[in-house]
Amino acid sequence: MSAPLYALQYDRLVRDALSEDLGRAGDLTTDAIVPRDQGAEGAILVRREGRIAGLEVALSAFRQLDPEAHFRILAGDGSDASAAEIVAYVRASARALLSAERVALNLLGRLSGIATATRDVVRRVEGTGAAIVCTRKTTPGLRALEKYAVRVGGGRNHRFGLDDAVLVKDNHRALAGGVAAAVTRVRERVGHMVKIEVEVDTLEDLREALDLGVDVVLLDNMTLPMLREAVTLARGRAKTEASGGITPETVRAVAETGVDMISLGWLTHSAPSLDVSLEIEAEAPGS
Amino acid sequence: MSAPLYALQYDRLVRDALSEDLGRAGDLTTDAIVPRDQGAEGAILVRREGRIAGLEVALSAFRQLDPEAHFRILAGDGSDASAAEIVAYVRASARALLSAERVALNLLGRLSGIATATRDVVRRVEGTGAAIVCTRKTTPGLRALEKYAVRVGGGRNHRFGLDDAVLVKDNHRALAGGVAAAVTRVRERVGHMVKIEVEVDTLEDLREALDLGVDVVLLDNMTLPMLREAVTLARGRAKTEASGGITPETVRAVAETGVDMISLGWLTHSAPSLDVSLEIEAEAPGS
Amino acid sequence: MSAPLYALQYDRLVRDALSEDLGRAGDLTTDAIVPRDQGAEGAILVRREGRIAGLEVALSAFRQLDPEAHFRILAGDGSDASAAEIVAYVRASARALLSAERVALNLLGRLSGIATATRDVVRRVEGTGAAIVCTRKTTPGLRALEKYAVRVGGGRNHRFGLDDAVLVKDNHRALAGGVAAAVTRVRERVGHMVKIEVEVDTLEDLREALDLGVDVVLLDNMTLPMLREAVTLARGRAKTEASGGITPETVRAVAETGVDMISLGWLTHSAPSLDVSLEIEAEAPGS
Amino acid sequence: MSAPLYALQYDRLVRDALSEDLGRAGDLTTDAIVPRDQGAEGAILVRREGRIAGLEVALSAFRQLDPEAHFRILAGDGSDASAAEIVAYVRASARALLSAERVALNLLGRLSGIATATRDVVRRVEGTGAAIVCTRKTTPGLRALEKYAVRVGGGRNHRFGLDDAVLVKDNHRALAGGVAAAVTRVRERVGHMVKIEVEVDTLEDLREALDLGVDVVLLDNMTLPMLREAVTLARGRAKTEASGGITPETVRAVAETGVDMISLGWLTHSAPSLDVSLEIEAEAPGS
Amino acid sequence: MSAPLYALQYDRLVRDALSEDLGRAGDLTTDAIVPRDQGAEGAILVRREGRIAGLEVALSAFRQLDPEAHFRILAGDGSDASAAEIVAYVRASARALLSAERVALNLLGRLSGIATATRDVVRRVEGTGAAIVCTRKTTPGLRALEKYAVRVGGGRNHRFGLDDAVLVKDNHRALAGGVAAAVTRVRERVGHMVKIEVEVDTLEDLREALDLGVDVVLLDNMTLPMLREAVTLARGRAKTEASGGITPETVRAVAETGVDMISLGWLTHSAPSLDVSLEIEAEAPGS
Amino acid sequence: MSAPLYALQYDRLVRDALSEDLGRAGDLTTDAIVPRDQGAEGAILVRREGRIAGLEVALSAFRQLDPEAHFRILAGDGSDASAAEIVAYVRASARALLSAERVALNLLGRLSGIATATRDVVRRVEGTGAAIVCTRKTTPGLRALEKYAVRVGGGRNHRFGLDDAVLVKDNHRALAGGVAAAVTRVRERVGHMVKIEVEVDTLEDLREALDLGVDVVLLDNMTLPMLREAVTLARGRAKTEASGGITPETVRAVAETGVDMISLGWLTHSAPSLDVSLEIEAEAPGS
Repeated sequence: MSAPLYALQYDRLVRDALSEDLGRAGDLTTDAIVPRDQGAEGAILVRREGRIAGLEVALSAFRQLDPEAHFRILAGDGSDASAAEIVAYVRASARALLSAERVALNLLGRLSGIATATRDVVRRVEGTGAAIVCTRKTTPGLRALEKYAVRVGGGRNHRFGLDDAVLVKDNHRALAGGVAAAVTRVRERVGHMVKIEVEVDTLEDLREALDLGVDVVLLDNMTLPMLREAVTLARGRAKTEASGGITPETVRAVAETGVDMISLGWLTHSAPSLDVSLEIEAEAPGS
Repeated sequence: MSAPLYALQYDRLVRDALSEDLGRAGDLTTDAIVPRDQGAEGAILVRREGRIAGLEVALSAFRQLDPEAHFRILAGDGSDASAAEIVAYVRASARALLSAERVALNLLGRLSGIATATRDVVRRVEGTGAAIVCTRKTTPGLRALEKYAVRVGGGRNHRFGLDDAVLVKDNHRALAGGVAAAVTRVRERVGHMVKIEVEVDTLEDLREALDLGVDVVLLDNMTLPMLREAVTLARGRAKTEASGGITPETVRAVAETGVDMISLGWLTHSAPSLDVSLEIEAEAPGS
Repeated sequence: MSAPLYALQYDRLVRDALSEDLGRAGDLTTDAIVPRDQGAEGAILVRREGRIAGLEVALSAFRQLDPEAHFRILAGDGSDASAAEIVAYVRASARALLSAERVALNLLGRLSGIATATRDVVRRVEGTGAAIVCTRKTTPGLRALEKYAVRVGGGRNHRFGLDDAVLVKDNHRALAGGVAAAVTRVRERVGHMVKIEVEVDTLEDLREALDLGVDVVLLDNMTLPMLREAVTLARGRAKTEASGGITPETVRAVAETGVDMISLGWLTHSAPSLDVSLEIEAEAPGS
Repeated sequence: MSAPLYALQYDRLVRDALSEDLGRAGDLTTDAIVPRDQGAEGAILVRREGRIAGLEVALSAFRQLDPEAHFRILAGDGSDASAAEIVAYVRASARALLSAERVALNLLGRLSGIATATRDVVRRVEGTGAAIVCTRKTTPGLRALEKYAVRVGGGRNHRFGLDDAVLVKDNHRALAGGVAAAVTRVRERVGHMVKIEVEVDTLEDLREALDLGVDVVLLDNMTLPMLREAVTLARGRAKTEASGGITPETVRAVAETGVDMISLGWLTHSAPSLDVSLEIEAEAPGS
Repeated sequence: MSAPLYALQYDRLVRDALSEDLGRAGDLTTDAIVPRDQGAEGAILVRREGRIAGLEVALSAFRQLDPEAHFRILAGDGSDASAAEIVAYVRASARALLSAERVALNLLGRLSGIATATRDVVRRVEGTGAAIVCTRKTTPGLRALEKYAVRVGGGRNHRFGLDDAVLVKDNHRALAGGVAAAVTRVRERVGHMVKIEVEVDTLEDLREALDLGVDVVLLDNMTLPMLREAVTLARGRAKTEASGGITPETVRAVAETGVDMISLGWLTHSAPSLDVSLEIEAEAPGS
Repeated sequence: MSAPLYALQYDRLVRDALSEDLGRAGDLTTDAIVPRDQGAEGAILVRREGRIAGLEVALSAFRQLDPEAHFRILAGDGSDASAAEIVAYVRASARALLSAERVALNLLGRLSGIATATRDVVRRVEGTGAAIVCTRKTTPGLRALEKYAVRVGGGRNHRFGLDDAVLVKDNHRALAGGVAAAVTRVRERVGHMVKIEVEVDTLEDLREALDLGVDVVLLDNMTLPMLREAVTLARGRAKTEASGGITPETVRAVAETGVDMISLGWLTHSAPSLDVSLEIEAEAPGS
């Protein structure tokens, strides 16, 4: 995880999440029950096996409520933790531990869930040379973190947004009056550091895109035989990306067609959270 | 959906989501290809059957990029749409349609996914009198919308945050030195409009909590026979809420123990998105 | 004062207040006159007797302008300080002391003024069992702090906002077509952790509200005999809260009717500031 | 009230105040009870006689929750309204009326309270030629509005912040080693559009300040005879401002010494709110 | 100019600029002198010949202070206006015209200055096939607008930031231990839609970069003969970009070496503003 | 540079500038190539002779990305650095050095460019007694820093905004129906700490303004003989400021007319950046 990005982005995201949970009046239960100077130690553990992602961001929630919070990480981002494994210890004021717990776990669970799902798909295509890539089907506000979790899971990132690369889709093509017109207009306007990808549904469209010299072709909803032919046509001329309704069950077959990339929206929009929890032990006063 | 909340909260959330997608340079593809004054109409449709939630918030993404955007809603929040059903038409500038599409669909898919999962669980407990409630295991930044989606699915809301009700958990009890001490401290501090719930694991703890006159007892990880006994003990004295590892398969049996509420974290943290898409048709110039 | 809330809310409130005072160009006078590395010590003292509230938030203004600022608190929140008593010493750069002075004193004076007014009313009802509670008639942006000051003064808090409890007022009842309809609609929608209070003007309305099993009844603008009768009716069925034109002179008589709570808007909207000031002494260079 | 300032400052202040009141979940009571398309009309009235200030800002709270809200103003800012007088009618959705009511009234009451207090003091000094001015002892976040309310009450404004004029106080003088040194340093640094005021406690200090050619002298905590002598000394050389412990009872005598200005902190920090309320009448459906 | 970007980015930038100019107290002069309902018309004209850029963003400053402001554009973005030419008329409240004038002109002058400087350089290389591109040496907060102005001037954009393309500079190469190691590490991490450029100072480095198959080579501070040789080596293998100390006087010779792009930092960091002004004519009341 | 202003204003400006450069995904190049724990040292040097301004703000960019960054300043704000002179060393993580470099240099170059241009003009008028002042023709968002740079260059500041002083321009006069009416209206409204300047084009207007007792007269676009006469007329009655089309070539002659101030817009809107750069040296691991 990039320290600069933490300072600039995640710090605020975590603070906003804490504000969302603490509201106007704060943690009524904890503030009433726990003395202000009570210390405690918590163990973060996973309930089910999975790939850890977002641990540092999650832990920062404790530090935001207690700048003296101290962490010991046993299994950092990229580790595969087994069920019931403790991934980190947190020592902080008991109030901070209790009041930041849910925010920390919500972040860790979600990001580890995405990393775990990605890892599982990446394993399925091992040896084929196909990369697993994510899409822009991410949670509002969490895109950079979710794309990070995909990388932790062994996947790779597609565009981060509409502004860092060009993807000419069916609608663009129709509005431009054909793929050639679309690509021409794009080249007149975008800078030389921007890559161009074109979505194609048919081999005819594919040939036209290849003749235009685009960088990547998105092969959408093609059958396996069609994918194989597309890969042959594109070899040495453009990178190939398969997409559309690909599941864990079908992903290996798609990978074996020889495509360079397989993009999967559900890595980010539908991966279940990894089940994580915090167990707290109060410290003797004065410790 | 509350108009005031839209004005105060969702408007900014949607704008931030659009900024996240459009970045510094905007939609390179669309801006290069689509003329500024081109109009278009889009149809929002669901790919799989589900309960619609968040349609107005999702549509507002189009209006943020084109204040003249016009909507026709066929199946609003709370409707059960069948596969391939069109739920709304959007007429707007083609640029706005294309540039806001992903943000709108990400929101609609996520919220409808939660509403659909909730509806399915609510149906499973139909007739038992048990309510399905969500937890604080929500996505950072989306809590209010996700809790709204749960209500659209027929579920009910637990606390919105740490500040609107008291929930005394195991850790609080341990730090206070017993449930009686914890509840006493809480009552000294919180106002008269705040309800108090206490988590109990054993029937002994339950009896103590009931004697303290708390409003709700959270029966955590209890077996079905234990739940039944707990319900009998609590009747007329406190509301009962069951939680802990309850799945769609086990939820009916839990409901039949007579508990008032069943809380389920996965409604919000692990429900898969509903698959939704936008089909765009360009308008003749001047139309 | 809750450390988490400081980190999440007050930190920004204090920074905004400093920005409001320092503007674009900063403290013209101090920046021109006082050397950058000059240290100083200031004593915060109260001019008139009162209950201190908000001292830590006020002091944080100095730390925002000088992270090395050091405090010695003699009479913290909840203390009753006598006229001319020093409540804290601040050692910091002279520039920070002078530039943050007004913001610190404005906060401390206002919050201590509320705490003092509350304390004085609480003393008047001592022994009656009635609690003094505040309302939502607070200063825009300062609600949480003002409600905290009420607690420091010995009072208790009513709702923090429109979203943490239900209060059915006359207008709601009229729009719903009766209190029964209103309460029914509320129960269909709000979660099980939300309390319900109903405002009543007559004993007939009170009886209806009690029959509906609401948690609290707000007895608005009732005469003392009527209040007494209302208290008798409500005993064991709902908490009672008196409101409407109650002054320091009448509050004891109201309390003696046996009501559980008395709510007073003027605690927050009209309590005069406590007069506080800062006396600064420059330090010898190098000290 | 300046339209540009509304657009740039107050719009956000009002939205933040609404957010503070509506929280995460919105107006639970109103959203449950009042149909979304129900219209209503409300009358804003004052309970006690006073000078109206801030009416437009207050009304904007309704428009933020209902852009179609329509106002009819009977007694705008600067009017003296008598007890029970209706100052404005608001027609809007019933939900907007109920949910924005408290924010609107909190603003109107506070600002009208300041305008009323100012007006009363201004009347006391009528004919003396002395102007009543406010200080920087304002509520955090509300300075510009509170200073506006002072103007509506017939008072005038001192500095808006530390950056728009110079005021050399005792502490500055002590740190600079004398008033001459302080003024010299200031003149080296600040621009030619910045006025300079110096606080003096003695006539000797006054003479020194006058010799330095400063624009204004602040005569702090002087007796009436001393004030008279100071005014004579300063005539034609600098404007004179009296301050320090001046009350409504003593203000006329101070004014009659011939000072140009009298500054009063309590206009903004301790003026009680004007008591204002909203009476709502539901509209027949379809009206 | 992209409407979506205006809604999401420039709207806030313009509001912040207005706030910076209007401060806490607003336009003292105008508010005192000009009646609130006075209308006026203003003509925006250029004092010296130049290429117009940013006119719509600049005009939006007037609309922020008067939503009813109406514009007539005679010479929009991309036009070459001659000295004293009127480029737009604005009809609005006189207060809005006067209070927004400076912000509008500051934006228009700066962006048109960049467009004009770019246009002039583009003309110098006409016919050579070399594109003029800008760098990241932009004004903090204005990058997207300044890059837009470069496009309006006929130039093209390089990276918008550190996150949308890779540029391996000397320092990166040194830290990685050679260009091959650097490019390898980059390829392991970044997605398939990201282009890679490598900075080279020598022909030996150039050959290594070309062998690695990077997309673009940055030829830094090379002599003209060296540039010619580099272009020959890179032909058909990578795009070439020249940079380093290139002035208007030398740019044509550089272009004639056959490089694809010439990047110039001074287009954005040192282009003088275009001199623009506003002439206002008051309207007859009631018009 | 004022520490309070840094804490309140520049800290956020620098963070926003870093966010603008790092975007969603961060520094792709550096994060891929440079190990997280690699340290480095950088030297900031100027390429051409100039006056340094903004060094501390610029350096703070490094500290934002690495709180442990350590600086050694050789030539701070106000120093005249010669070509190739090193003005500061920065020791920080190599990632922070590389990722913050551009933001730091963009700020330092711009502010030093303004300071250098100001210094050069100030030198041209040396001995005449005329002060060089800047205007409100500043970069949106950077006004306070740019005005600071003018002071570092030896110039002085005019108004910081429309709210800290009054300047009656031609348009105001026309709308008020004459300068007397305009000044009268202003005096009725603004406080006693606000100075009043009036723009005049003719000697007749000048006489009217002087008779009104305004503080400063702005002599706009006058010939040298006319300026001389104006200065004679105004002596002892008001400060004089010359403006309008004054260049480095003509500024000395204008100064010799005896005017108090000469205001120059191009100091802030058109001064070229000072050329500054960063040279990085990696540290041995473990150092």
